Amino acid sequence: MIERLCLVGTGLIGGSLARDLKRHGLVGEVVGASRNADNLQRAVEIGFLDRFDTNIAAAASGADIVLVAVPLGAFEPVFRQLGGALADGAVVTDAGSAKLSVIEAAKQAFGEVPAGLVPGHPIAGTEHSGVEAAIDDLYAGRRVILTPLEHTDAEAVAKVRRMWEAVGAEVLNMTPAHHDEVLAATSHLPHMLAFTLMDVLGRMNERVEIFEYAAGGLHDFTRIASSDAQMWHDICIANRDSLVEVLDRFQTDLHTLTDAVRAGEVDSVREMFVRAKRLRDTYVVRR
Amino acid sequence: MIERLCLVGTGLIGGSLARDLKRHGLVGEVVGASRNADNLQRAVEIGFLDRFDTNIAAAASGADIVLVAVPLGAFEPVFRQLGGALADGAVVTDAGSAKLSVIEAAKQAFGEVPAGLVPGHPIAGTEHSGVEAAIDDLYAGRRVILTPLEHTDAEAVAKVRRMWEAVGAEVLNMTPAHHDEVLAATSHLPHMLAFTLMDVLGRMNERVEIFEYAAGGLHDFTRIASSDAQMWHDICIANRDSLVEVLDRFQTDLHTLTDAVRAGEVDSVREMFVRAKRLRDTYVVRR
Repeated sequence: MIERLCLVGTGLIGGSLARDLKRHGLVGEVVGASRNADNLQRAVEIGFLDRFDTNIAAAASGADIVLVAVPLGAFEPVFRQLGGALADGAVVTDAGSAKLSVIEAAKQAFGEVPAGLVPGHPIAGTEHSGVEAAIDDLYAGRRVILTPLEHTDAEAVAKVRRMWEAVGAEVLNMTPAHHDEVLAATSHLPHMLAFTLMDVLGRMNERVEIFEYAAGGLHDFTRIASSDAQMWHDICIANRDSLVEVLDRFQTDLHTLTDAVRAGEVDSVREMFVRAKRLRDTYVVRR
Repeated sequence: MIERLCLVGTGLIGGSLARDLKRHGLVGEVVGASRNADNLQRAVEIGFLDRFDTNIAAAASGADIVLVAVPLGAFEPVFRQLGGALADGAVVTDAGSAKLSVIEAAKQAFGEVPAGLVPGHPIAGTEHSGVEAAIDDLYAGRRVILTPLEHTDAEAVAKVRRMWEAVGAEVLNMTPAHHDEVLAATSHLPHMLAFTLMDVLGRMNERVEIFEYAAGGLHDFTRIASSDAQMWHDICIANRDSLVEVLDRFQTDLHTLTDAVRAGEVDSVREMFVRAKRLRDTYVVRR
């Protein structure tokens, strides 16, 4: 049972968590904070916030757990504003898609990473964003990765773990660097490809007509290109090193494929397709 | 009403058409032909074939419409075997994903493109293939593109159009070259990206672990990588010129994105993400 949860950012990720905790009676009070009072008011009307304050420190005051779920570029100023609230021993966790940058933002804001900060990342979401996008059961059966540091308080980690498990998630720990490499490959790279594909198609001459003849394949393939542009801009900066590494790998492979198609020497391509299909059929499951 | 339909190839595309035509009482008899007698027998058991013959000319004899729905690499030999059946004025159409290559195969097999050949492409499908993959209502609300030549018989085109409309599809005409350019961009390129991504991920060190942390985004993005490898091998050869052109365009754009991320100069990237999201939200609809 959480007495008071403070959500900094009330979009899909924070809102969906609050909806489930409230629905199951697992939280006493949810207090929201963000720069946008209209969104906060809307979250109160929807029902997943009990009250809000546009002053982050005031909203976080007295909370057992503070969840920071804002675009990665906003973490350092949010941490600076949280300063006072952290001092009284609250547990702070987050939902950022890159973890080294969150830890760096904490260092910049606090001088050192507080023992009560538990960096985390729920591997869940939809292509929608904002207060209206929050849904029930978003985390049921999903994974949440926590990336505590050596000096992170074990009881803080356990508290965050229990919170996510209470809404149906499976919680795993890994190092921040490993998290960033894995997510660059499985999430950040596919988003780059989907955005780029849409842009390429959009600049072709008959763009409206082109989309007229698109099948379900394109619809599914580009779903993630409907994701929030600012959020993904921030991820590009925050996870730059790992993202560039997988982008380079991908480009090497795509270059090889293109050369083979150009030369009509596609036996090797068929073998690649067979490998790819086998991997996809075996390992990529709907959760 | 079609008296007798001959399916050359009894997989997802031909089988799904036959299921709908039979279910709605729009076809007298469906006769199957393919190299694989087991598949043909299974199609009879499932019920969308009335009978079959592994000799293509025999199966096609006396049919009003022959639908060729085989991988693109098999078209020329299939056309050669159809020779006699075509002579008696049957309408032949097909479901190949590239149209210039089908027309070229017809030239090679028949010396010239028969007036009764109506090249076509139903923009429908799933990542599954084979006789068991055929489903009801695959074509409801989908587009079918026909690419008749100047000398193609108008009544043959009308007959094929009526067949697809009878199972709920919207039928449009365009030139073969334009079809191949549009499909290279909206279908063939995304498949190349999905296959390549799976292969890149598969060759990373901890591949099983990597997929453990994949979210729904990767699942949808790579769905098309579960498509049949031989079919896509054939498409790479058949639509080589248009495919290489869009692969080159994509690589140029991805290179620009990668350089911007590497340099941390991502304001232009955010603008691209905004454009891409707007296009996707506006034009790519679930049909």
